[in-house]
Amino acid sequence: MDLSHHLSDEAKNMKPSPLKGMYKYWVIIRLGSSLSGGVPHPSLFPYENMKANVLQPTAFSVGDSDGLFSWLWSAFKNKKSTTEITIPKYANPSDGPSAIQLSTALQYSMVQGLPAFVDFVRNFTLQVFQPAYPDFCVLANSGNTDGWTKACALLCHPGEFILTEDWTYPGALLSAWPSGVRPYPVPMDNLGMIPDDLERILSQWDEYEDHEGKRRPHVMYTIPIGQNPTGAVMDGRRKQEIYDICVKYDIIIVEDDPYYFLQYPEYKRKSERSLRSHIPGKVNPETSRKFLNTLAPSYLKIDHQGRVIRLDTFSKTIGPGCRLGWTTCNPLFATVMENYSANKTNQSSGISQAMVMQLVSKQWGYDGYIRWLRGIGAQYTERRDLMLDSLFEASFSGFGLAQNHSLSQGGVAVYDAYAKPSGFMHGISDEKLPSRGKTLFSFSIPNAGMFLWIKFHLKNHRSWVPRPAPGSALEVKLWTDLAESGVMFAPGYMFSTEEDDTPSDEGFAESHLRSEYAHMRVSFSSATKEEISKAMKTFVEVTLKFFQ
Amino acid sequence: MDLSHHLSDEAKNMKPSPLKGMYKYWVIIRLGSSLSGGVPHPSLFPYENMKANVLQPTAFSVGDSDGLFSWLWSAFKNKKSTTEITIPKYANPSDGPSAIQLSTALQYSMVQGLPAFVDFVRNFTLQVFQPAYPDFCVLANSGNTDGWTKACALLCHPGEFILTEDWTYPGALLSAWPSGVRPYPVPMDNLGMIPDDLERILSQWDEYEDHEGKRRPHVMYTIPIGQNPTGAVMDGRRKQEIYDICVKYDIIIVEDDPYYFLQYPEYKRKSERSLRSHIPGKVNPETSRKFLNTLAPSYLKIDHQGRVIRLDTFSKTIGPGCRLGWTTCNPLFATVMENYSANKTNQSSGISQAMVMQLVSKQWGYDGYIRWLRGIGAQYTERRDLMLDSLFEASFSGFGLAQNHSLSQGGVAVYDAYAKPSGFMHGISDEKLPSRGKTLFSFSIPNAGMFLWIKFHLKNHRSWVPRPAPGSALEVKLWTDLAESGVMFAPGYMFSTEEDDTPSDEGFAESHLRSEYAHMRVSFSSATKEEISKAMKTFVEVTLKFFQ
Repeated sequence: MDLSHHLSDEAKNMKPSPLKGMYKYWVIIRLGSSLSGGVPHPSLFPYENMKANVLQPTAFSVGDSDGLFSWLWSAFKNKKSTTEITIPKYANPSDGPSAIQLSTALQYSMVQGLPAFVDFVRNFTLQVFQPAYPDFCVLANSGNTDGWTKACALLCHPGEFILTEDWTYPGALLSAWPSGVRPYPVPMDNLGMIPDDLERILSQWDEYEDHEGKRRPHVMYTIPIGQNPTGAVMDGRRKQEIYDICVKYDIIIVEDDPYYFLQYPEYKRKSERSLRSHIPGKVNPETSRKFLNTLAPSYLKIDHQGRVIRLDTFSKTIGPGCRLGWTTCNPLFATVMENYSANKTNQSSGISQAMVMQLVSKQWGYDGYIRWLRGIGAQYTERRDLMLDSLFEASFSGFGLAQNHSLSQGGVAVYDAYAKPSGFMHGISDEKLPSRGKTLFSFSIPNAGMFLWIKFHLKNHRSWVPRPAPGSALEVKLWTDLAESGVMFAPGYMFSTEEDDTPSDEGFAESHLRSEYAHMRVSFSSATKEEISKAMKTFVEVTLKFFQ
Repeated sequence: MDLSHHLSDEAKNMKPSPLKGMYKYWVIIRLGSSLSGGVPHPSLFPYENMKANVLQPTAFSVGDSDGLFSWLWSAFKNKKSTTEITIPKYANPSDGPSAIQLSTALQYSMVQGLPAFVDFVRNFTLQVFQPAYPDFCVLANSGNTDGWTKACALLCHPGEFILTEDWTYPGALLSAWPSGVRPYPVPMDNLGMIPDDLERILSQWDEYEDHEGKRRPHVMYTIPIGQNPTGAVMDGRRKQEIYDICVKYDIIIVEDDPYYFLQYPEYKRKSERSLRSHIPGKVNPETSRKFLNTLAPSYLKIDHQGRVIRLDTFSKTIGPGCRLGWTTCNPLFATVMENYSANKTNQSSGISQAMVMQLVSKQWGYDGYIRWLRGIGAQYTERRDLMLDSLFEASFSGFGLAQNHSLSQGGVAVYDAYAKPSGFMHGISDEKLPSRGKTLFSFSIPNAGMFLWIKFHLKNHRSWVPRPAPGSALEVKLWTDLAESGVMFAPGYMFSTEEDDTPSDEGFAESHLRSEYAHMRVSFSSATKEEISKAMKTFVEVTLKFFQ
């Protein structure tokens, strides 16, 4: 399908590579003497080899048979067994063209990625995401920020709107902002963007008054799994609905999916939890397949037209400092992006590519890496569970939590938190009980990602007024109370798509503070067990006092 | 000095970081519990350590006392002694804040660079380039392509001209091209841009007809040392002249200097060469200082106004695959560039930073790295000498080389090559001899960088016509003759600043082919000794035949 009309002027204005026309002589170069390239000789690279001691793919339990909780926290103290991997300066020629060697990794190379990188991620994408068309392309990027920046530059004209979730990752907006590309938010629920709202926005575009006469968006930026900041997970059915609308209105979908492998089972109270996985923790094709079947599909799986640009990263599964990921898209977009990368940044770090591939592809292999991903996912599941456990435990002391059944949907439970009238019995309450007070905050159980998204019902605060004076807003007060008690959450305004929500020196956006609600994003990804427990206890105390 | 008027709209339109306003709470974060950031926990990074076996800083001789030629080529065969370096997951706390550890290097970090990186390159810049003002800033980049792309985006408005050398690095043009930023070439000689021509262009800007009514350039892109493709080296005196004109006309200078440490002594014929260095090869502050005094200064040394943005890279001294370098500039530009990088690409690879710094800063140290740079420089000196030796040796068989004294200047010798009338005695001729034929090509001895730049006098070809039919131009024929004989040079059009010199499918620019001259860039950086000798011999044979 021809999607070339989506390319920006910047994409169209690229100068052809001056190497064009020399390509037919590549064979000669290989046979004869090339004195055309200005590259250093590998004998002058100071590294004779690089090595690393690495964990086993099974380093983290998936909890199938080895006890209920493996306690990730013990990872600090207990030394896990490691293996040494080595990247030689020159690989053995018998290891073939995708062998990893420093003489290549430390040299200039194709921006698409080292051969070992391209081979691995192409096969991985094929097996795991199962693209709906055969000639998809993969291309290395330096992490999803880099991938999105390039996709945005090649698709968006300065000043136009892009479709985003109602709350979204601020980094994506910051990248688009300098050229005047602004978010146009689509309302969302626990499954992400709401199809009816998307359809309404697009079908009625020309009738709206709030888009400054700009043309209907043709690019969507979305984080469908473990959405940042809300934690929403979009299932296959919802994706199909959104995709069909994007076909109808000719929208390109940029699927930013860093948390794809951090999908979790439903949360159960501590006492009700049993095994975390019914799939054995063994490394083999069968357990890989079974595990992958538990995950929501990527947009790639339904993208029969090639209108999805998918961004994958090793940041959340290996380490953000690798600055390594890949973009999957149709051949036209891939060619344009490859040229653009060659012009603007050059290749991604060859040291990163070599280190990650020697581990993931050569040491662990495909099934080993899948097993590693399962272990990482299990660790974050424990972290999420611990945070929720801490909240529920705090509910014995002065406030309660009750499931909001009318808002819970699609396997996602929504809870309301409220202050207990004094003298009320300890224990978990139910929303039907007449004794509960007004709702202080509510949240959905995150079934993916790294975040708990808390919505505060400011209207239930005694001092709430519709239009507070600057600096006096309740969100400022609550966030500051928390920070001064030693608990730092990410304030909701950071993820706002409202144009006016640009922080002042006080760091708070004014327009947003006039709302009935405030939001905060709480991360369970990096604090220690003790920090999480203590922080949630302090959070409940400060919040109760705030609403008193 | 206030230079903020140089910033582009893209720079001015950046959205403030949403973290603004939270900064005053950083102390609290450190003391209390931060659940604000969405980062993985380091216990989940799979690398327990990284190691490398690395060469000694003295691995390559500088030729002071250990023989005339150490022959880099032996580096292939002879195993050099190595040391193992190790990057632990967690450094010993007593190693201080700039210790290198994977728990930090694999994590998200400041785009300015890891503490160890910033410490090292700031001190290095201070010692080596001696900036003329104290509050200069350093900032990691992912190589000079990345550094230039960002500098260009933050300074240049779409559609405007930038000042460049007459022939220049095509990558710099490709990066600027999509937003319509075009080169305005300044004539050059063996010392680079010619001050009088620069002054003339700027002073008469409004009278010119060939700049499409666009405003006078306010940005200069220059490669002052080992200029790509011409090999020109700009000395301190010429830099001062150019800088003074840039002050007068308020020009920002972007100094792209990847070849700075590849500065070579004058070429001497094989029989006349003796020691390559009078400075001992020992690693100590005194030899470092003596060596640095032999190098042409950076623009930084005369930049009392902060109008220079200097780009340094580890590509030519450690390896291009590191994708690691740094930008040095004034505090305003540094802040803007740091924000822009945070938005557009995020930090440079932490694995690259850790690997390069553990080697250069922790293992070798400042004086060790200076010694390494000297060794690398000596290796490229040998390569340059070998290429010239091969040309001079070929001059015994049917063609001759004679120094062109009228064009030689500033320590740079220019040579003319000509066919010898048949029956002429073998040997080097002098231009005064009546028996030499017409000049076929000429070149300057490159005293830095990686390239020999050859200028062909097409007008001395019997078939030369001022306006050849497309595809029939002599440059095409000569380049193709060479390629088909197994010798691949980079054709001159690749480095052209002429707008029309965009390659067709044939790879050759038409406007350029109407010139009396053709050019080719010959690299001595990466071929083997045998390849260089053979290629130069073939080159002479093919060229002689071509001009017959």
